[in-house]
Amino acid sequence: MSSIDFWYSIGSTYTYLTVLRLPKIAIVNGIEISWRPFNVRDVMVEQKNIPFSNKPVKSAYMWRDIERRSRMYNLEPKIPAPYPLSGLVLANQIAILGKEEGWLEAYTQATYRRWFQKGEPAGEEPNISGSLIEIGQDVDRVIGLATSQEIVSMLDKETIEAKALGVFGSPSFVVFGEVFWGDDRLEDAVSWALRGSLAPIE
Amino acid sequence: MSSIDFWYSIGSTYTYLTVLRLPKIAIVNGIEISWRPFNVRDVMVEQKNIPFSNKPVKSAYMWRDIERRSRMYNLEPKIPAPYPLSGLVLANQIAILGKEEGWLEAYTQATYRRWFQKGEPAGEEPNISGSLIEIGQDVDRVIGLATSQEIVSMLDKETIEAKALGVFGSPSFVVFGEVFWGDDRLEDAVSWALRGSLAPIE
Repeated sequence: MSSIDFWYSIGSTYTYLTVLRLPKIAIVNGIEISWRPFNVRDVMVEQKNIPFSNKPVKSAYMWRDIERRSRMYNLEPKIPAPYPLSGLVLANQIAILGKEEGWLEAYTQATYRRWFQKGEPAGEEPNISGSLIEIGQDVDRVIGLATSQEIVSMLDKETIEAKALGVFGSPSFVVFGEVFWGDDRLEDAVSWALRGSLAPIE
Repeated sequence: MSSIDFWYSIGSTYTYLTVLRLPKIAIVNGIEISWRPFNVRDVMVEQKNIPFSNKPVKSAYMWRDIERRSRMYNLEPKIPAPYPLSGLVLANQIAILGKEEGWLEAYTQATYRRWFQKGEPAGEEPNISGSLIEIGQDVDRVIGLATSQEIVSMLDKETIEAKALGVFGSPSFVVFGEVFWGDDRLEDAVSWALRGSLAPIE
C-alpha cells in the first residue's frame, strides 16, 4: 500500500482543509496516511518565515481563499477563525500523546472543527475539554501526560525530524523523500505516491 | 464571454508556468484573458512580503515544486533559473509597451522561455534582443520607447491599480473583484469566471 507522511501543526490555518478532507482521500486512493504533528512555529521562526503577521492584505486574502475552498470541500467554517493560537504548543503536545495512544486523528479533527466552526481557539479552553470529551478521553489525565517531559521531548524530536526532511510549513506531505507543501499540494502528493510523478495534463 | 484579468510581473518564478499554459486554458474554457503587467517587487517591498530571499529551504522547495509541476504541464525548464532578476523593471516596461502595441503575450512567452529554458535572465541582454527579434520587433526602437516617461508612468499606474484590487503577488487572477493568487489558483479563477463559485468536490 502506498503511504504518505502528513506533517502538520495544529495552529496552521490551511491545515483545517486537509485535516477534514484527508481521510476520505486516503480511502478513495488506497493510501495509508501517517499523521505526524510537529511544532511548525519553531521551524518558521528559525527560518525567518513569517507568512501573515503584519501583512494585512495577504492575511485577508488567506481567509478569503480558505473560505472559498472550504465550500468546494463542503465545509462551512466561520471566517476568520481566531489566529494566531497562543496554545499552539499544548495543542500539538496533546496530538503527540494522541498518536501514542491511538486517538490522534479523532482529536485533530475535533479540535479543528471547534476552532474553525465554533470560533474556539485550539490548545486552550473550552476547546481542549470539549474535543477530548467528544472523543472519550479524560481531560485531566490527558493534560497531565501531554505536558510531561516525555511528550515535550517527543514533540521536539518530531520537529527536528521534520526540519531534517526539508519540511518548513504545515501542512506538508512527504512521499519517497519528496516534500509537498500546502493543502493545495495534497493531490500532487497522492499522484506521487501512486505513480512517482504528477499526472500529466494535456 | 467570461473574462479574467491576469496580473503578473516578469520576474516571478511561478508565473513561468502560467504564461506558458494560460493561452490553451483560455481557449478550452472560452475565457477572455486580459494580460496586466505590473511591478510586483514594489508591492512586495511595501508590504514586507519577502518570499524567498534568505530562506534557503523554502527556495529549494520552490524550485523543486516548479520542476515537478513543469513536467505535469509538459514543460522542460532548466532548474533553477537565474533569480532574482536585476532587470525586472525594464522587462515589465517592455511588457507595458507590448500591451499598447499588441505583442505583449508573444513577448512575455518568449522572454520566459529564454529565462527558464536557456538560463538567460529576462530584462537584460541577450534575453531582451533575442525575445524581441523572435517576435519581429526592432530592439532599439522598443528599448527607447519602453524607458520613456510615458511607459514608466503607465507601469506605475498599473501597479497602483493592482494594489487597489488587493493583488500582492504574481501571478494573480482577478474575476468579479475576487483575487486568486498563484499559478495553482488558475483553475479556481476559471471556475469562478464560469460559475461564480469553485466547483464542489464530492
